[in-house]
Amino acid sequence: MDIIDTLLKHPIFRGLALEEANRLILDSRNHKEVFSKDEFVRYRGDECSSLFFVVSGKVRAEMQDPKGIVLLLEIMGFPALLAPNFMFAQNGKFPVNVVAVEDTAVWIMHRDVVVSGFYEYPAFLMNFLRIVGDKTDFLTQKLWISTMNTLKEKVIAYLYNLTEYGKKSAFELPIMREEMANLFGVERPSLSRVVSELNKEGLIEIKGRKARIIDFERIKTLLEM
Amino acid sequence: MDIIDTLLKHPIFRGLALEEANRLILDSRNHKEVFSKDEFVRYRGDECSSLFFVVSGKVRAEMQDPKGIVLLLEIMGFPALLAPNFMFAQNGKFPVNVVAVEDTAVWIMHRDVVVSGFYEYPAFLMNFLRIVGDKTDFLTQKLWISTMNTLKEKVIAYLYNLTEYGKKSAFELPIMREEMANLFGVERPSLSRVVSELNKEGLIEIKGRKARIIDFERIKTLLEM
Repeated sequence: MDIIDTLLKHPIFRGLALEEANRLILDSRNHKEVFSKDEFVRYRGDECSSLFFVVSGKVRAEMQDPKGIVLLLEIMGFPALLAPNFMFAQNGKFPVNVVAVEDTAVWIMHRDVVVSGFYEYPAFLMNFLRIVGDKTDFLTQKLWISTMNTLKEKVIAYLYNLTEYGKKSAFELPIMREEMANLFGVERPSLSRVVSELNKEGLIEIKGRKARIIDFERIKTLLEM
Repeated sequence: MDIIDTLLKHPIFRGLALEEANRLILDSRNHKEVFSKDEFVRYRGDECSSLFFVVSGKVRAEMQDPKGIVLLLEIMGFPALLAPNFMFAQNGKFPVNVVAVEDTAVWIMHRDVVVSGFYEYPAFLMNFLRIVGDKTDFLTQKLWISTMNTLKEKVIAYLYNLTEYGKKSAFELPIMREEMANLFGVERPSLSRVVSELNKEGLIEIKGRKARIIDFERIKTLLEM
């Protein structure tokens, strides 16, 4: 079964024996759901008490403001979990709409399987907690970035932040380009455009995951504008 | 000991026998730290691998943008935990500066005590996960609200959201006034001013924790402006 092979590679099972991960995945209380392009996987407010694995395809998480304007939060494919932070929250509901961007399969692990997994396999709990923590990290950064106005400012501020406020000029990008686009709430081409602009202007050099600030002074000026 | 009596009332110990909570709290690997007004409790980037309980006093969590402008995130007193979501994250660092607003005592529970508590007392783990989930809920709402421009818009949008987009007109506020101010990133007096404005204008009625939307049409118009 293809889907099981994929799931076995999920970071939440890191440190578990193959047999142990298999037991959690194949528990009869779990089930699979499939969605075609543009179908809603879950609506904001739907119950969120299980663990949702995106196994194949892609989904987008979006919020709607009262004016009906959609705010794209993230595009997610494997190994994304959907709203893992919310499954034990008081509210226990999806905080966002989740929509299939293409044909998508989701594996839903029953809450009881997850909880008993925590007690049987310490690594499973620690992996879950790490994922939940990283998700919060992402949201906190997103919140900080949301205070900036333009995409260029957002990118510069994010990169400047990675220099530990000017302490070092060369550093590695901790996330992939797609995650960066998610963080800024834009599509990848828009991000690429700004990145090549910054390269051309001699402000910041980005090659793959290596980045280097060329002109700190002009960057500070730009952010103050 | 006063501090222990306070800690015993913390929601993270709900469902534990007094003796069990006492054992976790009094473990010799834990310790207390005290701070005077305006002292930094932790800097952004400091290691965050233990569980920090604000036992007395108050702290504020704040971020700084590259221009040095401070973004107030939250004012927190007991039973707040400091950055609980981050203690198991990959990064494992404080995402914000935490500053004492008044004389403050913090009880620091060692990571190993926390982890062994998870396995000894299932309720302790479930309480921790609920708190972490609620924190993410708060951040997600804050992110959504950050897309609005004025405080009045933010308040209206938040309340409109609680009506489940117009499905019900009367509802209960799920959080206290101070938490609401935190959510909007303002001090309480500013929030009170806007709330009484909304009352006076006959848009929304708020009495204690009960709220009622009076004029849906005008609210929608206001949000579209």
